[in-house]
Amino acid sequence: MIGRLNHVAIAVPDLNSAMAMYRETLGADVAEPFDQPEHGVTVVFITLPNTKIELIHPLGDDSPINNFLAKNPDGGIHHMCYEVGDIIAARDQLIANGARVLGNGEPKIGAHGKPVLFLHPKDFNGTLIELEQV
Amino acid sequence: MIGRLNHVAIAVPDLNSAMAMYRETLGADVAEPFDQPEHGVTVVFITLPNTKIELIHPLGDDSPINNFLAKNPDGGIHHMCYEVGDIIAARDQLIANGARVLGNGEPKIGAHGKPVLFLHPKDFNGTLIELEQV
Repeated sequence: MIGRLNHVAIAVPDLNSAMAMYRETLGADVAEPFDQPEHGVTVVFITLPNTKIELIHPLGDDSPINNFLAKNPDGGIHHMCYEVGDIIAARDQLIANGARVLGNGEPKIGAHGKPVLFLHPKDFNGTLIELEQV
Repeated sequence: MIGRLNHVAIAVPDLNSAMAMYRETLGADVAEPFDQPEHGVTVVFITLPNTKIELIHPLGDDSPINNFLAKNPDGGIHHMCYEVGDIIAARDQLIANGARVLGNGEPKIGAHGKPVLFLHPKDFNGTLIELEQV
């Protein structure tokens, strides 16, 4: 069912220093930040030859990553996003296998303008998984 | 400097259930486990179209991931591995930029039989980074 690893998302407490670290210390291809108000985050994509890193920083008081950064003040790996061909078929197969889908179970539009869903980390070895339909 | 994302490593408390979850629930291509006694882990590679997931489970009482699993009993994302062309040049450039290399600073041979180094997570937004020379 899962296809490519679309991205790994890293929550960071300071976007400018994280961008500088990836651009200058690690020599990666770092884009400019953009706000995603409907997801409560500011996002920076880092393009690697085979996948992307997504730096995420809280946008607003209700950001869904505020709790994560309170528990991990240095930042940390927040989620992994796998591509699927049909997100509704994937969701229904996962639920039939006993996995829990977060929220109301309906896909939202993610950072790439495509439907996404998140799966419960307790069902996947403590890993928050995003599925994105491509 | 950094090239492809070689793999994302996920520490798991129960290798068999994690393998079944990736193989059956997520429909991924899951290989068989192999022991890496010099790294204190048993490893399972999951091949995605563009990168790999590495499930890691403690091997022996001194496993370097025992502490991680004590803090994260469900498991969790343990590290990310980036490919570099010349690991000594990469190390020296990182140290010149103020980053800390773990251990004695000399590369070890990793799970793919190639030289690897680990960087201090405090210098990289709470993310443990492995560099592998390819």
